[in-house]
Amino acid sequence: MKAFDIHPVDRSIKAAIQAKIDNLNKPKGSLGRLEEIAMQVCLIQQTLEPSLAHPCHLLFGGDHGIEREGVSLSPRQVTWQQMINFTHGGGGVNMFCRQHNFTLRIIDVGVDYDLSSVPGIINRKIARGTKNFLYEPAMSEDEFNRAFEVGVEMADSCHSEGCRILSIGEMGIANTSPSSIWMHIFGNIPLKDCIGAGAGLNSEGIRHKYEVLSKAVDRFYGQFGLNGQYGSIQPVQPTEVLRFFGGFEMIAAIGAMLRAAELGMIVLIDGFIMTACAIAAIRLYSCVQDYMIFTHCGDESGHKKMLDIVGAKPLLSLGLRLGEGTGALCAFPLIDSAVRMMNEMNNFDNAKITKYF
Amino acid sequence: MKAFDIHPVDRSIKAAIQAKIDNLNKPKGSLGRLEEIAMQVCLIQQTLEPSLAHPCHLLFGGDHGIEREGVSLSPRQVTWQQMINFTHGGGGVNMFCRQHNFTLRIIDVGVDYDLSSVPGIINRKIARGTKNFLYEPAMSEDEFNRAFEVGVEMADSCHSEGCRILSIGEMGIANTSPSSIWMHIFGNIPLKDCIGAGAGLNSEGIRHKYEVLSKAVDRFYGQFGLNGQYGSIQPVQPTEVLRFFGGFEMIAAIGAMLRAAELGMIVLIDGFIMTACAIAAIRLYSCVQDYMIFTHCGDESGHKKMLDIVGAKPLLSLGLRLGEGTGALCAFPLIDSAVRMMNEMNNFDNAKITKYF
Repeated sequence: MKAFDIHPVDRSIKAAIQAKIDNLNKPKGSLGRLEEIAMQVCLIQQTLEPSLAHPCHLLFGGDHGIEREGVSLSPRQVTWQQMINFTHGGGGVNMFCRQHNFTLRIIDVGVDYDLSSVPGIINRKIARGTKNFLYEPAMSEDEFNRAFEVGVEMADSCHSEGCRILSIGEMGIANTSPSSIWMHIFGNIPLKDCIGAGAGLNSEGIRHKYEVLSKAVDRFYGQFGLNGQYGSIQPVQPTEVLRFFGGFEMIAAIGAMLRAAELGMIVLIDGFIMTACAIAAIRLYSCVQDYMIFTHCGDESGHKKMLDIVGAKPLLSLGLRLGEGTGALCAFPLIDSAVRMMNEMNNFDNAKITKYF
Repeated sequence: MKAFDIHPVDRSIKAAIQAKIDNLNKPKGSLGRLEEIAMQVCLIQQTLEPSLAHPCHLLFGGDHGIEREGVSLSPRQVTWQQMINFTHGGGGVNMFCRQHNFTLRIIDVGVDYDLSSVPGIINRKIARGTKNFLYEPAMSEDEFNRAFEVGVEMADSCHSEGCRILSIGEMGIANTSPSSIWMHIFGNIPLKDCIGAGAGLNSEGIRHKYEVLSKAVDRFYGQFGLNGQYGSIQPVQPTEVLRFFGGFEMIAAIGAMLRAAELGMIVLIDGFIMTACAIAAIRLYSCVQDYMIFTHCGDESGHKKMLDIVGAKPLLSLGLRLGEGTGALCAFPLIDSAVRMMNEMNNFDNAKITKYF
């Protein structure tokens, strides 16, 4: 895997940022979370006058071998159908990108359907879906590296267009399954607490999903001579965990997150799957979290637990569970509000106001 | 007080709205709170294709006699200073209005300063602040009716310009005090649970505020021969409660809320003070709540309790406590997202997608 040169944000500018925030004409702290976001954005950009120039949204699509085990209520063909639908502008991700002026890139990293002739889809297909991780690693090392590079390439390309804020989403039927396993392994959380309804499973479906994933995790542990006990996985390289269970779209997302942070971009993280990818990215490079804004806590059981692993306090809690990065897009205007606060709000000096509380 | 002809929204269209929402190309219910907001907006507008044309924000300013009792950490001159600041575009309300394309009207209903020559402030001053309700009613019946009419006039004027969604904010040092008392009386909640830090009071300040407000409430009860027991106020007309404690800016806000609902407009409610006004409006006309979207739950102690009185689930919880209606403005894009969902999202038929979960 490519190495990244990601720096923790330089906090020496923090006092100056806080002083500017506290002198804006409002009671101290009265813009709440917006003030925290303003601080983070200023730290990332090392400025008192932040910018959200050219926001971009990456939508990575891929299919999953594990879908064959009946872990998802929806069939895999929904992945390619939705990918095509996105090119027509009628998906959730499309309307929110239009609303907030995000440039949308739709990237096929591993959809199980030939989309190469569909205008509007960037073809970076590694394979037609991953292998079934109940029986073998989801992808080879070479495939892993290539999926990773797709994410890096996309972040690069957005950055070269002037993008300062990157949001990332996914389309991939069954991808809550690898997400749950990553949460279990990287978060040291019992597997049963990591499995939720995905999109609409009943209790029987959840039980089945648990059995399948549990078996897969045991087999994974077994190949390293580990006994599969919760917490016993620490000696294994994170990249092995990613490669064994990951979706191509998820590996690409992690690559994009890391490269975006290396380039000093703000990265927006939303739902269960993207949070699992974010936690994987943080396991690889802990300081990547400095660049991440967690935007939404969904209803998927365990999402809050996963956010707690890294102490993230998401901006929204709207019960969204559509995926596609829609939660991140919905939160964008709040980040924009925080940036406007820094750039447009008068301070006590130029507003000629008695400092108030 | 003027009578209003406010109708509960006609729910006969509800099944058709729900059918449209459920056939959009997404797992059922997967846009969470946005789907609920879409339902409410469609019910208000009695359509499957809602619109948020020409959003307007009313900012009512007024001073409070009770401020003389030291219930607020900030002095009353901040009210007029901020009103002038708003005309220069440098306040919190200004930047968020610009961000979301709201037309802002700044209305002096009772600021204790001559603002009549300030360009950009609509002069509807009733008096230079209310009277001190520790000793006498905050305003006369005539003043009450005139303040009320200011709100009605402003809602009318926005509506005549084509406004379908109205957001309302306030500027008035010490106006958490009447808000707390209204919450106590209209919500049947012990006064001590209705008093928070306002903007920055310490525990000594809160104790003093409680003593002052408690005395004022006792005297108010006393004039009706009531013993001041919690809950004993029911026989008294709500308008008497409003007139005795209210700020001019708060009475105007209530007038605007009721008139907007009468005209079928969506009304956005945010912080502690606006929620108190909303609850007062609901006490006057219960069905006005059909038209209200509660946008933000702030940190002011008791705000959540007050929202619970009317079963409101606000969209945001960002720790904002600036007032001015800033919470409502910050929530606007989410309402816009809900409306776009209804108007722009493909359905399962035209998107050619297997119905998924």
